[in-house]
Amino acid sequence: MSRFLSQAHCELTPYTPGEQPKDALYIKLNTNESPYPPSQRAIDCAAEAARHLELYPDPTCSELAARLAGELEVEAQSVILGNGSDEILQYAFLAFCDGTHGAVFPNITYGFYKVFAQLYHIPYTEIPLNGDFTVDLECYNGCNRTIFIANPNAPTGIALEPSQIEQILRSNPDNVVVVDEAYVDFGANSCVPLTAEYDNLLVVQTFSKSRSMAGARLGMAIGNKELISDLNTVRYSLNPYNINRMTMAAGLGTLADSDYTRNNCREVIKAREYTAQGLSALGFTYPKSKANFIFARHPKVGGENIYTQLKQRGILVRHFSTPDLTDYNRITIGTMEQMHTLLDALKDILEDM
Amino acid sequence: MSRFLSQAHCELTPYTPGEQPKDALYIKLNTNESPYPPSQRAIDCAAEAARHLELYPDPTCSELAARLAGELEVEAQSVILGNGSDEILQYAFLAFCDGTHGAVFPNITYGFYKVFAQLYHIPYTEIPLNGDFTVDLECYNGCNRTIFIANPNAPTGIALEPSQIEQILRSNPDNVVVVDEAYVDFGANSCVPLTAEYDNLLVVQTFSKSRSMAGARLGMAIGNKELISDLNTVRYSLNPYNINRMTMAAGLGTLADSDYTRNNCREVIKAREYTAQGLSALGFTYPKSKANFIFARHPKVGGENIYTQLKQRGILVRHFSTPDLTDYNRITIGTMEQMHTLLDALKDILEDM
Repeated sequence: MSRFLSQAHCELTPYTPGEQPKDALYIKLNTNESPYPPSQRAIDCAAEAARHLELYPDPTCSELAARLAGELEVEAQSVILGNGSDEILQYAFLAFCDGTHGAVFPNITYGFYKVFAQLYHIPYTEIPLNGDFTVDLECYNGCNRTIFIANPNAPTGIALEPSQIEQILRSNPDNVVVVDEAYVDFGANSCVPLTAEYDNLLVVQTFSKSRSMAGARLGMAIGNKELISDLNTVRYSLNPYNINRMTMAAGLGTLADSDYTRNNCREVIKAREYTAQGLSALGFTYPKSKANFIFARHPKVGGENIYTQLKQRGILVRHFSTPDLTDYNRITIGTMEQMHTLLDALKDILEDM
Repeated sequence: MSRFLSQAHCELTPYTPGEQPKDALYIKLNTNESPYPPSQRAIDCAAEAARHLELYPDPTCSELAARLAGELEVEAQSVILGNGSDEILQYAFLAFCDGTHGAVFPNITYGFYKVFAQLYHIPYTEIPLNGDFTVDLECYNGCNRTIFIANPNAPTGIALEPSQIEQILRSNPDNVVVVDEAYVDFGANSCVPLTAEYDNLLVVQTFSKSRSMAGARLGMAIGNKELISDLNTVRYSLNPYNINRMTMAAGLGTLADSDYTRNNCREVIKAREYTAQGLSALGFTYPKSKANFIFARHPKVGGENIYTQLKQRGILVRHFSTPDLTDYNRITIGTMEQMHTLLDALKDILEDM
């Protein structure tokens, strides 16, 4: 820390991304990436866009926003794009919260909500999940704060139904409810259709997971035009050229190949169900996941022990050292072959105990 | 504006990017882009990186930072990368300013400094330039604020010498001085060598101009390791994966082809001197530019009139409607052929008056 850093940030605890080791080739099941490459159309479009990098990108992202709006069956002005969905979440914290209007989110959820709140000195309340990791819906009734709900939640994978989100929307008509649907394409039901009805709903999605574009950084939010206009005010005050030309082109290519995305999602879901059965057979327990990961614990072996032994065997999963979560590991769903290797490794580890 | 927008942002005036018309093919001399495509190596590296977009980028950007540090003859920990240099400037406002520690910058300079200060409620002072658009150095002596100086300045193109910046650094030992060198490669002298000596100096540069990568969004800052560490604290609290894989790869490709960059800079400088002479011959006046643009006025024809007539002839330049600047247009330096076309058009316009 330098002697120049603002006092306001001296206590900051930044977000910790999942490890990205360079020393060996791991089976990477630790950052919820897709096991499949991006669509060939995305690759081709990005390569073509790279030929004209001397020109600034279109700050309005109009072509991509229009195409995305078409796919989601909303109006183009109801869509905003970000340099990953994290950037959009940041905009939402800046636009819809401040020192006197705070945020609420579950105590076990995507770790970045707390980091944004701390960075911007936004008061926040973490609402405990129920013992089974489900969201305690009653606690969100009329809470008079901006609400952030990851659905499906991370790292649990548990999904709420849109009708349950509706309950939160109705009981908080004067507050924005941000539903973070990073993992929605793996079997949960989206709240996007509700954006036509509720002016306080902002749905955040991403190209990182189901669309195999984590490395391109492309996220989006869908909501009432006025909410989106507020987010654009923030975006034009921070980084109007936030989406580069190659990412924009890759996004267009991916949208033109939606069969490929749908098929990959089906494969991930199939591998998830296979993995779930295999984990059960080995004695693991886990909440029912609608995401591209499973959050699993074993009654006899600690989470960190399993993490370490898997890493020694060349398999990376994500372990969180927070007390509530330390028994668990979050295991990203890869290809069927990768999950077979994982289950074999877990079997070995358990037999050695 | 929605009814949910924080009161803190209701008065916000976002940055206005230069126009990007889609209705016709213009000679684009309005956003200081390079007239040359990116290095073929950058194109090839980006295309290769597009094949693996399913994986997150390296949040440490270690390979690119190390290569860049090598080129700039600094240590790798003295470098940070951003999604365009705007993002780095934003980090600097967040890290080194706050509600009680304000910012100063010239009244005529890059428009984004004021936008960042307003967004983050940072008190700021705009110090008037001298009548000839030069920076009034005396005003920056011991001003006890974080100082932002674009060098060369925009939209004037006037450059200070590093020895003049040193005067500011020495008289403000307890404040960060941010020197924004977006245009430094077109003939000005960089302050990067001073970063070894002054722990309060942060130099911001970009791949957008001299390296033909405006469309890829890649900026960087060079400074004391502790300053860079502070900026990384902010970066990891906002968007650790801020640089996508393709942009990172394009940056590496560009650095491997530095002869191409140097040659393009020479061509731009040659075209700038040719344009300057041509403008003089037509009666225009302008400050001596060390950037890839010339800020010119004609004693007989208003700036907006010239802007409009050039646009009708298919040539876009940048006109600012602020009273101090309204006589002028900022003309980006393109290829020799483009500048020839511009001068012909200006001659026509003046003859028609």
